Amino acid sequence: MSFDSPSPDSAEAVVLHPIGVVETDAEELPRHWSLSDVEGALVLKPEFAPGLRDIAPGQRIVVLFHFDRSPPFEPGLLIQTPHHMDGESRSVFSICSPRRPNPIGLSVVEVLAVEGARVRVRGLDMMDGTPILDIKPHVEGSRED
Amino acid sequence: MSFDSPSPDSAEAVVLHPIGVVETDAEELPRHWSLSDVEGALVLKPEFAPGLRDIAPGQRIVVLFHFDRSPPFEPGLLIQTPHHMDGESRSVFSICSPRRPNPIGLSVVEVLAVEGARVRVRGLDMMDGTPILDIKPHVEGSRED
Repeated sequence: MSFDSPSPDSAEAVVLHPIGVVETDAEELPRHWSLSDVEGALVLKPEFAPGLRDIAPGQRIVVLFHFDRSPPFEPGLLIQTPHHMDGESRSVFSICSPRRPNPIGLSVVEVLAVEGARVRVRGLDMMDGTPILDIKPHVEGSRED
Repeated sequence: MSFDSPSPDSAEAVVLHPIGVVETDAEELPRHWSLSDVEGALVLKPEFAPGLRDIAPGQRIVVLFHFDRSPPFEPGLLIQTPHHMDGESRSVFSICSPRRPNPIGLSVVEVLAVEGARVRVRGLDMMDGTPILDIKPHVEGSRED
């Protein structure tokens, strides 16, 4: 079985189109949003601005994005040894590594301001220019709550 | 501007391949995972089984999936009026509607068991056969915590 050759079932491929990009001046980024104070903006294409109407400062939002600079996935990456884990290995679906079968990232950021198609945020762990795929409300709830 | 014609910048399209499908006998599904007790399984392709090694019963995991039965997005859907909102409207990036610019869904489910490439879970709000794109650890943390 191969991960990088064209899939035999490519008929089922899911094709997405970025709705905007991440903008930040930060040159060093934390490895995870939960450790980040980095500020920047989610700059959407102008046609999506109305979709931001109900986003307000102080809210936390979920950003889905494309790890566009990650090398292709291959079977050796099903188990990885993250730098911050002192040599301990982790299976890919238990870590936030950018090298995963589908290179989609998820970060939770805090909204500072909404200006047209531009959302100023704090808590970025994405590089400048990262393609944004979706913004969702951050839901804390669980059945137990 | 049009949302449903081929994008002029389709060079930047993001192409994903499902890693498995959701399996559930449930005929009625709650509108959101935070309201769900529905059980079922995430059935991955066999080659991804090693990536589940560190997922254990009791954990909550994030599942990203394809809203494969949603009609195409169009500009009229930037503002929607969800059934459960008593006629109040919401802009698309503040709701979990399946009709969104990129039809990706996010649910948080509880792991009941891991059996090879199959994860039994509780808390589904996805239909039987829904294509799964990614599984991630559920991180509660915020900078404030």
